[in-house]
Amino acid sequence: MISVEEALAKVLELVQLLRTETIPLRKGLGRVMAAPVAAALTQPPFAASAMDGYWLAAADHRPGATLRVEGEAAAGRGFDGALAPGQAVRIFTGAPVPAEGGVVVLQEDVSRDGDILTLPERLSDNRNIRPRGQDFAEGTPYFPRHRLTARDLGLMAAMNVAELTVYRRPVVAIIATGDELVMPGETPGPDQIICSNNFVLAALSEAAGAEVRMLPIAADNEASLRMVFSLAEGADLIVTSGGASVGEHDLVGKVAADLGLERAFWKIAMRPGKPLMAGRMGNAAMLGLPGNPVSATVCAKLFLEPMLAALQGLPAAHDVRQAILGADTGPTGPRTHYMRARLAPGAGLPTITPFGSQDSALLGILAEADALLIRPLGDGARRTGETVDYIPL
Amino acid sequence: MISVEEALAKVLELVQLLRTETIPLRKGLGRVMAAPVAAALTQPPFAASAMDGYWLAAADHRPGATLRVEGEAAAGRGFDGALAPGQAVRIFTGAPVPAEGGVVVLQEDVSRDGDILTLPERLSDNRNIRPRGQDFAEGTPYFPRHRLTARDLGLMAAMNVAELTVYRRPVVAIIATGDELVMPGETPGPDQIICSNNFVLAALSEAAGAEVRMLPIAADNEASLRMVFSLAEGADLIVTSGGASVGEHDLVGKVAADLGLERAFWKIAMRPGKPLMAGRMGNAAMLGLPGNPVSATVCAKLFLEPMLAALQGLPAAHDVRQAILGADTGPTGPRTHYMRARLAPGAGLPTITPFGSQDSALLGILAEADALLIRPLGDGARRTGETVDYIPL
Repeated sequence: MISVEEALAKVLELVQLLRTETIPLRKGLGRVMAAPVAAALTQPPFAASAMDGYWLAAADHRPGATLRVEGEAAAGRGFDGALAPGQAVRIFTGAPVPAEGGVVVLQEDVSRDGDILTLPERLSDNRNIRPRGQDFAEGTPYFPRHRLTARDLGLMAAMNVAELTVYRRPVVAIIATGDELVMPGETPGPDQIICSNNFVLAALSEAAGAEVRMLPIAADNEASLRMVFSLAEGADLIVTSGGASVGEHDLVGKVAADLGLERAFWKIAMRPGKPLMAGRMGNAAMLGLPGNPVSATVCAKLFLEPMLAALQGLPAAHDVRQAILGADTGPTGPRTHYMRARLAPGAGLPTITPFGSQDSALLGILAEADALLIRPLGDGARRTGETVDYIPL
Repeated sequence: MISVEEALAKVLELVQLLRTETIPLRKGLGRVMAAPVAAALTQPPFAASAMDGYWLAAADHRPGATLRVEGEAAAGRGFDGALAPGQAVRIFTGAPVPAEGGVVVLQEDVSRDGDILTLPERLSDNRNIRPRGQDFAEGTPYFPRHRLTARDLGLMAAMNVAELTVYRRPVVAIIATGDELVMPGETPGPDQIICSNNFVLAALSEAAGAEVRMLPIAADNEASLRMVFSLAEGADLIVTSGGASVGEHDLVGKVAADLGLERAFWKIAMRPGKPLMAGRMGNAAMLGLPGNPVSATVCAKLFLEPMLAALQGLPAAHDVRQAILGADTGPTGPRTHYMRARLAPGAGLPTITPFGSQDSALLGILAEADALLIRPLGDGARRTGETVDYIPL
């Protein structure tokens, strides 16, 4: 058996960074940039009023001074007349200031009678002017190293960036295997169950930025497996579930090897989900998950999500966080146990409580869980109140 | 001025829960269920082996006993012969057990010579059999009240649920207003800036489950505003930015009122983003955000996201969490200040540190921020190390 960390390092070795593509800014949410953009302009492009009010020369900014309003400057329509001492300009937020070296006095701080403006007796020190280039200057690079947020897109729009170079979305082909499986909506025979792994793996992959091809279920025979593998042509990552353990019915590894898989097979020191198969198959990475739905989901969280991150140039480490244990737990055996658990907000760290039953057949408990409590292999019993690690679900 | 909480309550009063629609399970990720589903079967549908090994009658489960292997049971292909005492069945994980009242002994715990199986001297107490209906019984309802996760979809697949009744995705029409705005990719004139609000609001809305219609920029004249509002026909929510303050150039409210908006306009006791306009316009709710991009984004977080949640039947409260203050901050004035801040993991709660500049013109700082530190109106100075509230970005 190898550790989860070793297995993660091995599956990540199978991953090659995807090619890049150019997309419109509007399509950027959640994508990962492959090259920096440069601001195409300076923001603000001009010194601009930060408030609605009146612009006047600094020399006129005296308590109680009286000025004449000569015109106005609005966002998009500056005032371009000449101004003499004692003259002011009505100005709105975002409008360019008429000249350097002025001050904007807030509209609520002045009194106005016709064109005559009177400043207050107590003046603010605040000029209420945004200097040119305060946010960014032309040429400033921007290269966030995370999945793009709405705010990233807003900043790049303001930089006048209309297109982005991003990593292509990984194409994931998903194959469930097993004579016992039928699709939802069908009527299962007496020994059959509904295929659920495909739906979990498709949604996890899509949430991680992938395009998913859900392939037909492969029966436990070589001809069926060959047919379904042929449908995965062109995928970046082929994910199977089932047929990856050591039982006699596990044909997936054999057929994949016949089709060119440089096969690696590991028993991983983890619960649930001991067996994992992986390799490269043509231009694709291949990940063979256990057939048990809880094991497949936990393995997808621990191995598939990092592979999808690495394909897109993102950090692939597990998102390990800390919480306070909400119930005593016994010692672990020779495998790290990823216990389905529930989080509750605490005064400081959240409290994490594993479900009473950790049977890997219970999808209901998996769906209810918020987190995988990590109980390292060989660890002793842990008491309520101790700090423990978890991975959010 | 009204408080943020009052304003939130008021905008939520404008929202009507959307109609429902039926979608295939495969499209369920992130959607919100409007009605429960019921499990169409019992899971496991039969008592099944939890491990690869050998099934035998409980009466034969004696230390060192010798049995004859009479056949095998695999997932999808049960053993349906008759068994006499002293006979065993090779069985694989997920396979139905041949009869009630048996035990599965793990393959690694026995020795086998031809068809002759010898049990170990020390027997486990574990039957390694999953009882029928351990996960869920036929008719069990499932009705999660959150955006559906991959695990929800897996559970419902296993329940043989092929279709879901969900709330329709809200259709959001986004309108930026202002003579000074041009779209990214254009060449701005000397007093113009690039429209960025549309891109932030579109991405925030999509991340919250909406379908977005990004409409043309409206110029600051009535004809242009009327034209663009007409393009919003059929939307559930119309979101404008710009033209919602009290300057003379704020025509949005006037035109919207001419088009039937029962207009509400509030100054909200918050920084940034004081002015907010809202109302109902035909069948749509309307939200008028400030034009300043930082203010628009913060207001979208505080008001637009809750409205989108409420449209889909989700809780609309702000996601307020706690952190340890990483820097001293001064007292607040008469408005609650949502300070752009950065989070760092701590030993317990994360540490939150507001950026030095809180100028609402700085999109670069907004993009870098992880969180809005909430500094309640009228609060005194807060010291490093105190526990404070924030909203994650």
